[in-house]
Amino acid sequence: MTKLNDLLKNTGQWLKGTGANSDIVMSSRIRLARNLKKFPFTDWADKKNQRAVLEKIKKAIDKSSCFKKSLFLKLDELSNIDIQFLLERQLISRELAAKKGPRAVCISDKEVFSIMINEEDHLRLQIIQPGFDFSESWRLIDRIDDELSSNLGFAYSSKLGFLTACPTNTGTGMRASAMLHLPTLVINKRIEKILETITKLSFAARGLYGEGTEAAGNFFQISNQITLGRSETDIINDIKRIIKQVIDHERDSRIRLLKNNLLEVEDKICRAYGILKNARIISSGEAISLLSTLKLGVDLELVKSINRSLVNELFVLVQPAHLQKIEGRALTPEERDMKRAQLIRKRLK
Amino acid sequence: MTKLNDLLKNTGQWLKGTGANSDIVMSSRIRLARNLKKFPFTDWADKKNQRAVLEKIKKAIDKSSCFKKSLFLKLDELSNIDIQFLLERQLISRELAAKKGPRAVCISDKEVFSIMINEEDHLRLQIIQPGFDFSESWRLIDRIDDELSSNLGFAYSSKLGFLTACPTNTGTGMRASAMLHLPTLVINKRIEKILETITKLSFAARGLYGEGTEAAGNFFQISNQITLGRSETDIINDIKRIIKQVIDHERDSRIRLLKNNLLEVEDKICRAYGILKNARIISSGEAISLLSTLKLGVDLELVKSINRSLVNELFVLVQPAHLQKIEGRALTPEERDMKRAQLIRKRLK
Repeated sequence: MTKLNDLLKNTGQWLKGTGANSDIVMSSRIRLARNLKKFPFTDWADKKNQRAVLEKIKKAIDKSSCFKKSLFLKLDELSNIDIQFLLERQLISRELAAKKGPRAVCISDKEVFSIMINEEDHLRLQIIQPGFDFSESWRLIDRIDDELSSNLGFAYSSKLGFLTACPTNTGTGMRASAMLHLPTLVINKRIEKILETITKLSFAARGLYGEGTEAAGNFFQISNQITLGRSETDIINDIKRIIKQVIDHERDSRIRLLKNNLLEVEDKICRAYGILKNARIISSGEAISLLSTLKLGVDLELVKSINRSLVNELFVLVQPAHLQKIEGRALTPEERDMKRAQLIRKRLK
Repeated sequence: MTKLNDLLKNTGQWLKGTGANSDIVMSSRIRLARNLKKFPFTDWADKKNQRAVLEKIKKAIDKSSCFKKSLFLKLDELSNIDIQFLLERQLISRELAAKKGPRAVCISDKEVFSIMINEEDHLRLQIIQPGFDFSESWRLIDRIDDELSSNLGFAYSSKLGFLTACPTNTGTGMRASAMLHLPTLVINKRIEKILETITKLSFAARGLYGEGTEAAGNFFQISNQITLGRSETDIINDIKRIIKQVIDHERDSRIRLLKNNLLEVEDKICRAYGILKNARIISSGEAISLLSTLKLGVDLELVKSINRSLVNELFVLVQPAHLQKIEGRALTPEERDMKRAQLIRKRLK
């Protein structure tokens, strides 16, 4: 049986640094919000109902061919560190982590698919893949959605589409997002204007860790806001178009930077690499900032001795719960800063 | 014939990091101020007289056994970069560099002895050795002084001792100084109190590059102020005593720091090493500051992969004129910052 600690042996497939435009797009993600017919939405349901929903979905998952080697975790059986660990891996949302009561997550092999149960909606199905890839992801998640739908029966209105706890998700129930690494748009200060435009076009832009967090490490998550009145394919085509434009801006900035400030860029990258390889104490914030600079170096092929997946993985591994899981015990903030530096040194050797 | 550019092949003996207490004392130096009888002091003399003094001293040096493989340089035949280069190597003073008219420097093999001609006094004889060593230095310089004296006839009063252009040097004409690396007394802020005490006891404390410069790289040059009314041996014993106390304070601070803040110290040292090994652009100020931290690491045996002489040498090599001499051409400040980083990377490899 797969256990939570087995996740420690690897990192998610989405960190592998492969796929289209993977020098700029870390990962692409699609989430579908679904609810079971004849059950009240999670936040209106009592524990008994929530438990019934959870068990019903679990049974459907057990039958699914996509979740054969999967890991099923009930959150009220997990420690705070384990929950934080799942959050750091992008396998659950902050909302699911903060909730009480019967709730669960199911994680497929390589962490490509996951299902949150009793988050805001009964079921949130997610696919996350490396690089810029929505079409294939949509094909895959759509198949699982169909399979689960035929077993579970989702709340659906022929007029509105899928019914969801929050009206902002009604219709397709789909949220497509990509995690973009945009360091040079931050350096040349064009990022704000671009994010403003994105927002005007009814897309959302957030930092690495979702809602309400700063854009640490120059990562920006761009997602659709509109779920109603357009087909899934339309939404995907819209977001593909907008993300392609942001990619072009970042690529253009990188070319200019290399042309006009090669030495300064090399200096910044090499210093970041030097500090990461040598520090004995490092905070999470500093580590993420330096890793962002190092990632740019790797993606620009200025640093050739390490590969993209290694840097990508470090963004996840240096986080507090990961350090504590790796160490097998709770760590004070001071101990974490030391263990973080140790882990980075070891990996970059 | 030895040429100025031959100096580039090596660095001075005083940088070798050997000798007593060489983890704290970079070098010990003794300078003797001497003037020829029957010639006016340099600043009162016309060019003809200055030239006569220069030629007379040159002849005496040519006969001396200690200056057999020496380099004799007339400063008005040198470029500004060459003069700056000699200053950076501690072979001439700022005053000699800034002066006009016939003036020269003679440099012995390994740069242990040097003689400035027509600085403030006709002759300034210097010995500079690695580590904390005044007794042997005094023995050596005293012998050369005797030899030169018998050939030249120095201005001497049985009442006052050696006569000098400035009365503060009259008597022994001797200035003994040691260059101390005191990073932990700077960290724990005890340095100011110590320097204050030194000054009260009639000793002077200055930065790395002599009068009027900041204590860059945590180097402090401590020297006697009193030259009159005490014998050379008394003066040397006095300064040995005071320097021994400063050494004890620094050593005590180092032990405390290692005991109470080992990880922080290691972190600081390793980061400095990491930046020095990786930077592509580095200013003189930053380089000296990071090298000071690295030197502490080497002296505390926390960094074992490089030896003390290598770090000591870098303090001299990273200076502007050295970079330009090594490169064989004038460099803009931007080019120097790049070449400095390159040189440091190469040497630390």
